[in-house]
Amino acid sequence: MPKELLASPFRSAAERQQERVAKRQALLTAAARLFNERGFHATSLDDVAASLGVTKPVIYHYLGTKDQVLLECVRVGLQQLQEAADEASRGGGDGLAQLKRGLARYAEVTMNDFGRCVILTGDAALSPESRKEFRQLKRQMDQKVRALVANAVADGSIRPVDVRLATFTITGALNWTSYWHSPGGQQSPSEIAAAMVELLIGGLLAAPAQTRK
Amino acid sequence: MPKELLASPFRSAAERQQERVAKRQALLTAAARLFNERGFHATSLDDVAASLGVTKPVIYHYLGTKDQVLLECVRVGLQQLQEAADEASRGGGDGLAQLKRGLARYAEVTMNDFGRCVILTGDAALSPESRKEFRQLKRQMDQKVRALVANAVADGSIRPVDVRLATFTITGALNWTSYWHSPGGQQSPSEIAAAMVELLIGGLLAAPAQTRK
Repeated sequence: MPKELLASPFRSAAERQQERVAKRQALLTAAARLFNERGFHATSLDDVAASLGVTKPVIYHYLGTKDQVLLECVRVGLQQLQEAADEASRGGGDGLAQLKRGLARYAEVTMNDFGRCVILTGDAALSPESRKEFRQLKRQMDQKVRALVANAVADGSIRPVDVRLATFTITGALNWTSYWHSPGGQQSPSEIAAAMVELLIGGLLAAPAQTRK
Repeated sequence: MPKELLASPFRSAAERQQERVAKRQALLTAAARLFNERGFHATSLDDVAASLGVTKPVIYHYLGTKDQVLLECVRVGLQQLQEAADEASRGGGDGLAQLKRGLARYAEVTMNDFGRCVILTGDAALSPESRKEFRQLKRQMDQKVRALVANAVADGSIRPVDVRLATFTITGALNWTSYWHSPGGQQSPSEIAAAMVELLIGGLLAAPAQTRK
């Protein structure tokens, strides 16, 4: 038998590590999905384990307690929201172009498993210590989105709106997709994101006089 | 002693009824406020009772179980949101004028005790039967807000947007105030409502071409 066909049944260290990461990720996604579908309080770690055909100790091993599972879910979601703003500001274009890219990506995250978990479960169910971390990450993320709006006001590519209120208005509209968008719906998240951003950006561009009739 | 000064220490039937209504309303407001501040799961009926210096049986007498208390809180909130749309469509003006009035009032409700309870607690904690009523009321309310947008599209006072998506975008932005507006903050709910409606309506007025740069 030629040597190259004699595959080892033993996994290499790199393969084992890759498998650990994949298992952890699958458990985390299953948890976020069930929290989103049934509510955090109505979901047990037994339910999460069962949805992947394993038992609760497997979750403890890979992710820890229910509080740690939720913290990790919202951490991933908040990081993705923050990256939406980071990537937009690293890309080219004026303030408006950056803002549009950032908001479109932000909206897509609010429709995925981890973004939805940030919005739908939030921090109310977290332990005080985990809640502290949630709020710190959320503040960082909010600051970065607000900076996108502020930069677009500063370079004159949108009108001089109240940055705090405009950011709350826009992100609120996008956050709300977590409540009404059904994964697998007719329109894709990116189509929905683009249409919403167009509506919201329209409000930032219109001169105040145009908004009255 | 002239007869008119001899006040009876016994309340009339009308006075007793009025007092019952006032007590019930105070208990309901106290409940909504605590649910909003601490979260529904972290609030007991004992906490609600204690906040008014009474005991839990008083709540059972006036409002019923914790599920019934929550249902009544969100019922009041959903009714107020629906009235926002109803009153706007009964008033005069074109579709845009009606939409603006409706949204401004809707936004104010999302910043009061009962509107916040609809958004922050929602239906996840309700019993299956109560949840059914919540969803029916919410559907009615959504339909009426959507009709305001549809009418404004129909009479040409706003541009021909996707009515469903535009309504979700706008009401999402307004609903989100429940999360970030602190009662007693610097700006009043009606000032915030007006500024947000101006931003959101701006997006409905702008011609699509204007939204691109």
